[in-house]
Amino acid sequence: MDSSKVADKRHMRSIMTRQKLLQAAKEVFIEEGFQKATITQIIKKANVGYGTAYVHFGGKDEILIVLMEDVMEQFYQIAEMPFFPTSKEEAQQIIKKQAYSFLKMAEAERSMMQVFEQAIGVSPVVSAKWKEIREKFIQRISQDIAYSQKKGLAKTQLNPELVARGWFFTNEMYLWEIVRNEHKASVEDIAQTITAVYTTGLYL
Amino acid sequence: MDSSKVADKRHMRSIMTRQKLLQAAKEVFIEEGFQKATITQIIKKANVGYGTAYVHFGGKDEILIVLMEDVMEQFYQIAEMPFFPTSKEEAQQIIKKQAYSFLKMAEAERSMMQVFEQAIGVSPVVSAKWKEIREKFIQRISQDIAYSQKKGLAKTQLNPELVARGWFFTNEMYLWEIVRNEHKASVEDIAQTITAVYTTGLYL
Repeated sequence: MDSSKVADKRHMRSIMTRQKLLQAAKEVFIEEGFQKATITQIIKKANVGYGTAYVHFGGKDEILIVLMEDVMEQFYQIAEMPFFPTSKEEAQQIIKKQAYSFLKMAEAERSMMQVFEQAIGVSPVVSAKWKEIREKFIQRISQDIAYSQKKGLAKTQLNPELVARGWFFTNEMYLWEIVRNEHKASVEDIAQTITAVYTTGLYL
Repeated sequence: MDSSKVADKRHMRSIMTRQKLLQAAKEVFIEEGFQKATITQIIKKANVGYGTAYVHFGGKDEILIVLMEDVMEQFYQIAEMPFFPTSKEEAQQIIKKQAYSFLKMAEAERSMMQVFEQAIGVSPVVSAKWKEIREKFIQRISQDIAYSQKKGLAKTQLNPELVARGWFFTNEMYLWEIVRNEHKASVEDIAQTITAVYTTGLYL
């Protein structure tokens, strides 16, 4: 075998080890909760060597952040839905779909989101990561608002970023209620209600 | 001295001891943060006997909850502003004043609110207390919305509690931003913007 093939094989093995560690971590975090989970449990479950494991991740916070990014990638896809409304009604429709998908995703990813919530509470690194994720959402919403204002669809006297933060906060807190299974209304009703207030308040 | 006077005196002394403990706790919590603060530091600072101290409070969580209730009393007074608007404009005015006072209070009580935030993150008792406080706010907002709907001022197709939660979430998250000194706009601008979106969205 020539040396480039050896390198390829090594690279493949490395990717698989990483995947095994991430899958094991997911299971251990969900079973034990973030605080009780240990890196040793994860390594054992993944059935990889200690030295090899530490090549990939420095600790459980680091693994969790990678898992968080994976889930958040799905959330970002919602935030990044094309947003070029030509009327108030069209804007309302897109925003309602975004809010609904955002909250539905929380429901679908409930177990991991519960782990994230615990981790955000106890790990400064994870908490900083969550803050970064939130800002990304808020910036995207701000852009959508500015676009609507430019197109003459939304009130221009409102500061896009201040509006965006307020709107994101409503969505975020409902998201955690859904993650904790504390919501009393359906996700559909929640999305419908908050979108109605927000879009009527913002659009002309 | 007759026995009732002795009892009065004892009662007075008890009230003063309690006050001394609360004041000392406030100082220790602000200096040390909730997690690092110990009941021993508080007792020493208050200069009261250990046995006496434990008659009043079972631990630092318990003291913090009393301090929290004191601050929240001030917040409740805002939520309990008389709310009998006869027009959309009047409703908007009252709500803007409420949002502004609510956020201003966070600014005025910043040090203690920072302690509360830490405590909410680590103490399940304190976290349960915060949840209770939030529900009280949300219920009060729901009532105000239902009142406006009954008077024909607000859209009746919206569920008051779902709207109230969404609105409270926006206020709450801005409150924590202000407490952490992370807000980039003025409290006035924040209150103005979020109220404009909310009241235009809800009122007819």
